[in-house]
Amino acid sequence: MDESTIRLINLIDVLSEKYIDVPEISEECMNTWSTEQITYYYESGGTNKPSSLNGMASQGHDQPGGSVEQTEDPAAHRNTPASARANQFAATVAGYRAQTIADGLPSRPHGLFPPRDPLLRELAEDPTAHPFEKHLAGEHSPYELLRNGSWTSGDEAAQAGFDMRLFYKDKQRDDRYGTILGAARLGDRASIGNGYWMSAHGGAVESLLDEATAELGKMEFSPMLSTIEAGFKIKKSVPLHTTLRIECEIREIKGMRCWVDGYVKDLSGVLLASCLAQLVDLQQLWAAQGQSP
Amino acid sequence: MDESTIRLINLIDVLSEKYIDVPEISEECMNTWSTEQITYYYESGGTNKPSSLNGMASQGHDQPGGSVEQTEDPAAHRNTPASARANQFAATVAGYRAQTIADGLPSRPHGLFPPRDPLLRELAEDPTAHPFEKHLAGEHSPYELLRNGSWTSGDEAAQAGFDMRLFYKDKQRDDRYGTILGAARLGDRASIGNGYWMSAHGGAVESLLDEATAELGKMEFSPMLSTIEAGFKIKKSVPLHTTLRIECEIREIKGMRCWVDGYVKDLSGVLLASCLAQLVDLQQLWAAQGQSP
Repeated sequence: MDESTIRLINLIDVLSEKYIDVPEISEECMNTWSTEQITYYYESGGTNKPSSLNGMASQGHDQPGGSVEQTEDPAAHRNTPASARANQFAATVAGYRAQTIADGLPSRPHGLFPPRDPLLRELAEDPTAHPFEKHLAGEHSPYELLRNGSWTSGDEAAQAGFDMRLFYKDKQRDDRYGTILGAARLGDRASIGNGYWMSAHGGAVESLLDEATAELGKMEFSPMLSTIEAGFKIKKSVPLHTTLRIECEIREIKGMRCWVDGYVKDLSGVLLASCLAQLVDLQQLWAAQGQSP
Repeated sequence: MDESTIRLINLIDVLSEKYIDVPEISEECMNTWSTEQITYYYESGGTNKPSSLNGMASQGHDQPGGSVEQTEDPAAHRNTPASARANQFAATVAGYRAQTIADGLPSRPHGLFPPRDPLLRELAEDPTAHPFEKHLAGEHSPYELLRNGSWTSGDEAAQAGFDMRLFYKDKQRDDRYGTILGAARLGDRASIGNGYWMSAHGGAVESLLDEATAELGKMEFSPMLSTIEAGFKIKKSVPLHTTLRIECEIREIKGMRCWVDGYVKDLSGVLLASCLAQLVDLQQLWAAQGQSP
């Protein structure tokens, strides 16, 4: 008998002596339940049995969480067509700014903003702030408005509880760079636990800031960017169904890297969460690696 | 005439001289287009006009991105019932571990894992690793399996392109704490740009690690935790439709804080992304603040 089995038997001895009324545990259970499960079984007076062997046997699943035939080919998702690749090399910040601003912010039929949102009104009335949506280099242009959204943009994200509306603000008199201002609302699906009186999940807040900081980098530094580091501080609970203020500014640009600060505030200006993102210019990186379209 | 108008007129003068064939810009446009838009209009030979005034006027929207009447009351989302509040105070790590392991990992009808996933099989066959899903304190128990999922858990998250299946691994002989192992797959909706040959969005990767590190904290430190800082490094593109390996371990527990390391790897063990999360024990925090249920 190995050591862990001996420990298990000792545990059951102790527990069955302490909880003498609890029915004895079967040998089969002993071999499949964890020490936690065994302890909990006794502590609960024998009522709490693991509902499934590793979460599947009793439910007839082939694997924990079950399975669904997957039809997507992951390789196809990496196989960028030559024309899109050429557009990734051709994109410029000036072009990115111009096209995203020209295209504006399309309507979101499943959006999370009610009519007459005060922050959206403030931003829309600022003639130096321009609403836009993320673009990417595609087969037809270096700057394409996404047809099917992304994790953080478009009506698709709004349907999944994430509605962020960004504005590029022209650089002001003494500024070196423009900034990003934005309004965001998170819905039930962005919750720590939908229906449990919880605030927004940290991952949703991080997604707001990851996206907003990257978009400022694309406006000012390089339209082909990748976030390589991001440090977040979550100062306060970020509420759901509540308009949040987003602000981003360039901290530094140096060589092929760029650092962007991002902030989530409430409407009275109280800081809820912040981020410092470090992004790398993929065009410079590709050039350094000798890559070409 | 104010200074900014003079600058604008000067800009148009320069551009119209440089691009003499481009039709003159109207006074109305001059007042509503940004300097970027004006420049781009001329550079494009007059073909690229902003499609909308701040993204809404021409589309008849009341505000950028439009509006939808919102019926949720944000205050209701913060108004925790007394019984749930009592359960938040009553929860323990031992109880959390026992109940989550007992409940196992329910089936996800919209899951992103195909049958016979090798990593899920490896984890399911490890008798010291227990599949589970996030629980929260609710009205009926300190440990409730979420009825409607969250940003990162349940079939709801899987439908939105995010399917992570976590296992709690019992502490091994010389370890102080158990660890988290897991398998995750991200779908089209978790993309940087769905349909643009892009990898997973940084926000989705951050969401994986934010959730997984917090769940380990809930298993070992306190079932009521809040992530207050998280530093991420994204080393390589994280592919879609591909099984990813998740690993988390406790770095340190000190007072009311806990630090957890998290890793996303590919199936050959190459590190794609990492995280160091700092979490605070809300039960200790509430006690220090003199709060009671």
